[in-house]
Amino acid sequence: MKPAKILIIGAGAIGSFYGAILSKAGADVSVVCRSDYQTVKQQGYSIKSDELGNWSFIPSQVIKNTEDYQGDADYIILCTKVTLDSDRIKLIQAAVRPNTCIVFIQNGVEIEQELIDAFPNNEIISGLAFICCNRTGPAATHHLAYGKLTLGSINQINTSLKRAKYLSDLISSTGIETLVTDEIISGRWLKCLWNAAFNPLSVLSDGLSTEQILCTQEPLIRVIMQEVMNIAQACGYCLDDSSIDTNIRNTYAMPPYKTSMLLDYENNKPMETEVILGNTIRAAKREHIKCPTLDSLYALMKLKELKQQG
Amino acid sequence: MKPAKILIIGAGAIGSFYGAILSKAGADVSVVCRSDYQTVKQQGYSIKSDELGNWSFIPSQVIKNTEDYQGDADYIILCTKVTLDSDRIKLIQAAVRPNTCIVFIQNGVEIEQELIDAFPNNEIISGLAFICCNRTGPAATHHLAYGKLTLGSINQINTSLKRAKYLSDLISSTGIETLVTDEIISGRWLKCLWNAAFNPLSVLSDGLSTEQILCTQEPLIRVIMQEVMNIAQACGYCLDDSSIDTNIRNTYAMPPYKTSMLLDYENNKPMETEVILGNTIRAAKREHIKCPTLDSLYALMKLKELKQQG
Repeated sequence: MKPAKILIIGAGAIGSFYGAILSKAGADVSVVCRSDYQTVKQQGYSIKSDELGNWSFIPSQVIKNTEDYQGDADYIILCTKVTLDSDRIKLIQAAVRPNTCIVFIQNGVEIEQELIDAFPNNEIISGLAFICCNRTGPAATHHLAYGKLTLGSINQINTSLKRAKYLSDLISSTGIETLVTDEIISGRWLKCLWNAAFNPLSVLSDGLSTEQILCTQEPLIRVIMQEVMNIAQACGYCLDDSSIDTNIRNTYAMPPYKTSMLLDYENNKPMETEVILGNTIRAAKREHIKCPTLDSLYALMKLKELKQQG
Repeated sequence: MKPAKILIIGAGAIGSFYGAILSKAGADVSVVCRSDYQTVKQQGYSIKSDELGNWSFIPSQVIKNTEDYQGDADYIILCTKVTLDSDRIKLIQAAVRPNTCIVFIQNGVEIEQELIDAFPNNEIISGLAFICCNRTGPAATHHLAYGKLTLGSINQINTSLKRAKYLSDLISSTGIETLVTDEIISGRWLKCLWNAAFNPLSVLSDGLSTEQILCTQEPLIRVIMQEVMNIAQACGYCLDDSSIDTNIRNTYAMPPYKTSMLLDYENNKPMETEVILGNTIRAAKREHIKCPTLDSLYALMKLKELKQQG
């Protein structure tokens, strides 16, 4: 059997890490990368993992634009940030073939529909990464902890679970935990509990770590998570009652961590405010659910963005 | 009639401005000041007012500590910030004589009782300044706009309204608007509408002006003001329904302004989070009123303070 051909689009911390894992598992992995193109082209990625050791990931093809990809990808894995000025369809469409399975490992809720609409005949898999992983320099990725990837098909095209299962098996062969689920949308809401709390608070506090935030403002964290749970439930995704406690406990157990939104803010890059908070609040309005705390956070993040732009 | 003897304690922007106004009106005005002591001692204050012109204010006595005040003050006017580490009683007690009337021109709600308890035989007047006024350098005060001072006795000791009226007449003789009211506590809540909205938002947005905040997040401003109104009402102070609209309209008419909390934050000084937000929220809990937006702002300000200290 030929190795699976995989194209990673947006090979930042998350993309390069899973690309490196898949390459380690024997797949033919190529990357589209822009900011670190020269370094990656010359020497590949340097992966430093506290759990798996250090290794180099040399992609099969290193390209700047999706149009330059040679061959038929079995999987496209989209790992870019989702911001107001990103066009996810345009980012991938030049490499989508009839048999390409589109995977997106991205933050946010209610971000599925535009992909389903644009590629009605391709299997689309939603992926959720539970990982502490940062870019520490050009083509340098530091994997601090965790790494579990949850995958679920969202449009149930013929090949369905088989494609998710194959990808999952490849990844888990390297020691990274995976889960294939038919409740991926619930999983996305569950992840939003954490993201909607810690991402904005780390930015609005001007850079406190998850640990400092949790140690001093656990009640606020719980209120935010409860509001997200209420919205998820109104949308038809009933999360387990223990979800908040579990999230809090897991965060206490994490190393002090800078959230992705905070790293973006510190580097003066666009933040994922819309897909994490904006989409959540818009779902709440649609379902007539009150979420005053999320409303405040969203408004404050918009002020922060205004300041960032000025 | 001898000129009134007045001691200003805490002669920052507000204190030096009203001290200068009272001196202009013929009063014998002394100041306790710490940070600008040397400059004030040598050359007094330089007051630059967009409405009243520029002049120098040479205090009668310039002292570092209240204990050093010579004579019997008719009025002590306390203008310090009210923060967790300030002791208002200790700041004034060495100069309080049987006939001294204690005036406090300070931010915050529910800050009266400790003064009433500590000085049961002195008249105490609560003052509210509606003014745009900044310290621009050592002993240099810039009065940008407004200046109205509202005064009200809060313990109705014998002399009662007469003392407030006398002070008010002195100030208004210079062209600055004054009002003596028996509804000063309502006035304090009314002022809190503005303070609870614009002070935290200017800090949490990292320095946007009142104008930038209002132009982009007017709905949030209105939610905050409504929560403060609900709490005031539960405490027995029913503010006029039009208060929010008036506040919004007045703020649009103001020059773009840095709030006092923002100036403190930028200068790495303690902020008035507790008297503006903390006391408001504690009143809400006591009266069983929900205020989720104020809760969020307060929690975020505590994170901001934690970051400031670290």
